[in-house]
Amino acid sequence: MRDEQDIIGRIQRQFPPRKIARKWLSIGVGDDAATLDLRGWGDHEMVLSTDWSLESIHFDARIHPPQVIGYRALARATSDLAAMGAAPRFFLLSLALLKSRAGGWLDRFAAGLAEAAREFGMELIGGDTSANSRIAISITVGGSVRRGHALTRSGARVGDQIFVSGTLGAAQLGLELLQCGAKPSSQISADERYAIERHLRPRIRIGLGQWLAGESPRGARIASAAIDTSDGLSTDLGHLCEMSEVGARIYARDIPMLKNAVASQHKDSRAKDRGSNSDALQRALDGGEDYELLFTVPWRTARRLPRQLKCDGGVSLTRIGEITKATRGSKSRIELISYSGQSTPLAAAGWDSFRFGT
Amino acid sequence: MRDEQDIIGRIQRQFPPRKIARKWLSIGVGDDAATLDLRGWGDHEMVLSTDWSLESIHFDARIHPPQVIGYRALARATSDLAAMGAAPRFFLLSLALLKSRAGGWLDRFAAGLAEAAREFGMELIGGDTSANSRIAISITVGGSVRRGHALTRSGARVGDQIFVSGTLGAAQLGLELLQCGAKPSSQISADERYAIERHLRPRIRIGLGQWLAGESPRGARIASAAIDTSDGLSTDLGHLCEMSEVGARIYARDIPMLKNAVASQHKDSRAKDRGSNSDALQRALDGGEDYELLFTVPWRTARRLPRQLKCDGGVSLTRIGEITKATRGSKSRIELISYSGQSTPLAAAGWDSFRFGT
Repeated sequence: MRDEQDIIGRIQRQFPPRKIARKWLSIGVGDDAATLDLRGWGDHEMVLSTDWSLESIHFDARIHPPQVIGYRALARATSDLAAMGAAPRFFLLSLALLKSRAGGWLDRFAAGLAEAAREFGMELIGGDTSANSRIAISITVGGSVRRGHALTRSGARVGDQIFVSGTLGAAQLGLELLQCGAKPSSQISADERYAIERHLRPRIRIGLGQWLAGESPRGARIASAAIDTSDGLSTDLGHLCEMSEVGARIYARDIPMLKNAVASQHKDSRAKDRGSNSDALQRALDGGEDYELLFTVPWRTARRLPRQLKCDGGVSLTRIGEITKATRGSKSRIELISYSGQSTPLAAAGWDSFRFGT
Repeated sequence: MRDEQDIIGRIQRQFPPRKIARKWLSIGVGDDAATLDLRGWGDHEMVLSTDWSLESIHFDARIHPPQVIGYRALARATSDLAAMGAAPRFFLLSLALLKSRAGGWLDRFAAGLAEAAREFGMELIGGDTSANSRIAISITVGGSVRRGHALTRSGARVGDQIFVSGTLGAAQLGLELLQCGAKPSSQISADERYAIERHLRPRIRIGLGQWLAGESPRGARIASAAIDTSDGLSTDLGHLCEMSEVGARIYARDIPMLKNAVASQHKDSRAKDRGSNSDALQRALDGGEDYELLFTVPWRTARRLPRQLKCDGGVSLTRIGEITKATRGSKSRIELISYSGQSTPLAAAGWDSFRFGT
């Protein structure tokens, strides 16, 4: 018969003790709480965030293998640290699951989690486990950022240029392909394989975030505001504009996306989707879970911004628009300039579990 | 139509901004993450813990009003800080709920949570919300403790005396009474009313924990080890013994409990329970959620320990046994001396969701 100690033991086996944490972790997993020695933090602040990964809301246990669920759960949460310009340091895992998943499923879940933790350089310092009728994961992450250098959503000013890293819409396309029965191994295009990979293993922009925050010893902060594209461009840019009390104008033709990739050709045959630019744009605007960084840069700095950075395994930076004055009375803060040059208000239509979920 | 911003707004209304947090909270609720300035921590370490409160596992929405669910969720988590001897400072709230509960239910839940936060002196600094088919709450709490003074589970030594605060089994009795249909307002005895109150509003031993940790500027640590009785004495003392690699002997006659209180007389009529000492002992040994502190004290200190402390609104301290050598090969580390003086091994039979839950 399995009990909580067995569950904790199975998770801990994937996280062998490492010397590196000993400097600042006084008490780790196994006691009532973890205890951190703050002497090593110097001129850095602590950044804390928490993120849900819920079965049937954020993942589907029928199409997501346990390793992927574990990897993505930590990646989702850590992306919030990247958006603040913070270096990830530790996390706490709250895991609730069916008893029937407390064996091999749990081992594979913990392996995926541990893989992400190694990649992001994070220590598991505590958590809580419980039986539950569905899988529920809540991860709290902690990181460090130079005092006063954290990137907020509220710093964008009129005239600032809007940039985004990587491509948008790829993760949404990847999810659609998986939902249609596609496998990474099946006969699909390179773009489609890339999209599936982006969905299953999002690339968290940790290095880019730190660079934008001016993490280097004498570095100045480069971005005036930042957010990660977890819910979708239309929603996340809306959050940034609201917090900064500004508006934004973005250009459809400048949004970086996988133009040639097409979904829905598997199992069903919505052939009209094939090659359609409007679908790719829709995914780029409203598809979530790309975990790219959306940030603003003062006009003078923007001209000097490289188009490509070496951090995070190579990341492109694309200018997609500019910050404008907020228009009173308008429902939307964002103006989308279409391919033909027409201006339309862009409403937030990204991911919101309260609108689309249970 | 409600969306995530509406949910967050409803929670925030219960937590008006307070000046006190400005000293150390650089960025609070509303951005991708919270940011803490660590300069004010001086010679203190940070203590972090996380706790589930899941519908149908940790509470029953049919018998627990939303205020109670909110209050208990934060109390449960904060009790882990008390068990470390830490002063509570902040928490992050992860809340998932049915859309139908996103109105009045949510307001009352947040009011109960805010009441607990005021009582414990904690700031809400961040969180995450999601729709879900059942209520799921994950709370991460943070506190501070003098460097090197944290109370662990692993410090108990052979000969140390075992103490417990307050009474044991009351919360379990209170739950049983509520499950039988009793109301705090109905005609029940004072002990029964006390038991229900202990279940609905657990008293977290924050002051006692800090006293045991020697929180005062020149204070020495009083307890050698500590844990909170969240799962039940038989289970929690087992954890403490396992982490300290020791055994324990406890005396049934010394365990503080509500001897005159009886459950099960409502709705059903298990009259044999009435006045039975064995039921009260069972609840004291295996009933969880009392959130008392179970701690060990070196023999010399134990003689000077007061029986009553003024902190936490008045709390009694009772010696219930002593730490012994761990016996090799025995399944149980704990020996229970019965009322008649007989010795029996005590197996962990407290709360474990993986044994009793879904």
